[in-house]
Amino acid sequence: MSDTSLLNELIEALKCLPSVGARTAQRMAFHLLEHNRESALKLADILQLAMTNIGHCDRCRTFTEDDICRICKSENRQQDALCVVENPSDVLALEQATIYRGYYFVLMGKLSPLDGIGPKELGLDLLEDRLAEGQIKELILATNPTVEGEVTAHFISELAKTYHVNTTRIAHGVPVGGELDYVDSGTLSHAFSGRRSY
Amino acid sequence: MSDTSLLNELIEALKCLPSVGARTAQRMAFHLLEHNRESALKLADILQLAMTNIGHCDRCRTFTEDDICRICKSENRQQDALCVVENPSDVLALEQATIYRGYYFVLMGKLSPLDGIGPKELGLDLLEDRLAEGQIKELILATNPTVEGEVTAHFISELAKTYHVNTTRIAHGVPVGGELDYVDSGTLSHAFSGRRSY
Repeated sequence: MSDTSLLNELIEALKCLPSVGARTAQRMAFHLLEHNRESALKLADILQLAMTNIGHCDRCRTFTEDDICRICKSENRQQDALCVVENPSDVLALEQATIYRGYYFVLMGKLSPLDGIGPKELGLDLLEDRLAEGQIKELILATNPTVEGEVTAHFISELAKTYHVNTTRIAHGVPVGGELDYVDSGTLSHAFSGRRSY
Repeated sequence: MSDTSLLNELIEALKCLPSVGARTAQRMAFHLLEHNRESALKLADILQLAMTNIGHCDRCRTFTEDDICRICKSENRQQDALCVVENPSDVLALEQATIYRGYYFVLMGKLSPLDGIGPKELGLDLLEDRLAEGQIKELILATNPTVEGEVTAHFISELAKTYHVNTTRIAHGVPVGGELDYVDSGTLSHAFSGRRSY
């Protein structure tokens, strides 16, 4: 089991997966070799295909192997609603959890000048084109409630104003099933100041 | 994001990894696509290479891409000691933790008649050939201290008797750093009956 053996190379390569360290990578390598060579070969093929063929949707910037993603292509969606999210996984989460069936715009990040991520990197020119089309009536800001997420939401809402598009922000507050004394103070003050008539 | 898209195929394929469910697979897919396409392509190559080229050592049955593994090839090892373990990962663990520098024999499992795993499946004919060579003076049984592991150790010790080879079993007892009242009763009774003069 020298350091240059194929087995060690495999263990090393598996570490590119998120939250997989030396120990887990070793366990994965042995598992695949012992029980699952066929699936591993299939994984190799699909990894290769996916990494070379999956790009970004020309319209909403999410991941897709086509020019335009399935959601942007669909004409059965609410035509005048656009939901802005940070990542493609947010689209999946919203599709599963909500009854929202409008379109999405995926920033692929959030404003973060220190990391060199400005409006251009987030494709906001593409978003502006979309707003300029005049079809969108409601722009839903669903960026994460972090400092950068809030700044990004604010920036985009200013942008939308110039196109006279109505913007809304998803609600932040106590999570359903949560208990007040377990919720952090930031969330609680958000929930309190954002109270609605009952 | 239809169910037949490449992205979904990738998420599905990643589930072949041990303890990776739908959620983790999704996180892995997005991570690779966003941050690490190059490493993912390398992983694809190495997976393909490893799964097709890694076989078993003709002498000790561990994983290797050669006919004979590095340890079996080495002549700087203690020639008369052979340590029997269940899995290739046990070899790595012993090499890292102990000063043992003899040879290994990897069963690639343990006796388990109900699963159709008998002496043949564990390559015990190969082990017999090895004992028949007459070079081995000590056979160290390092199978796991489970019911099947103990049965396997017992079976092999009987085999070794017919070749007049001395067998030893690694010690089982309270783990170093452990505390008596946290150790399960089986281990504790093992540790007590296996006490040694001090």
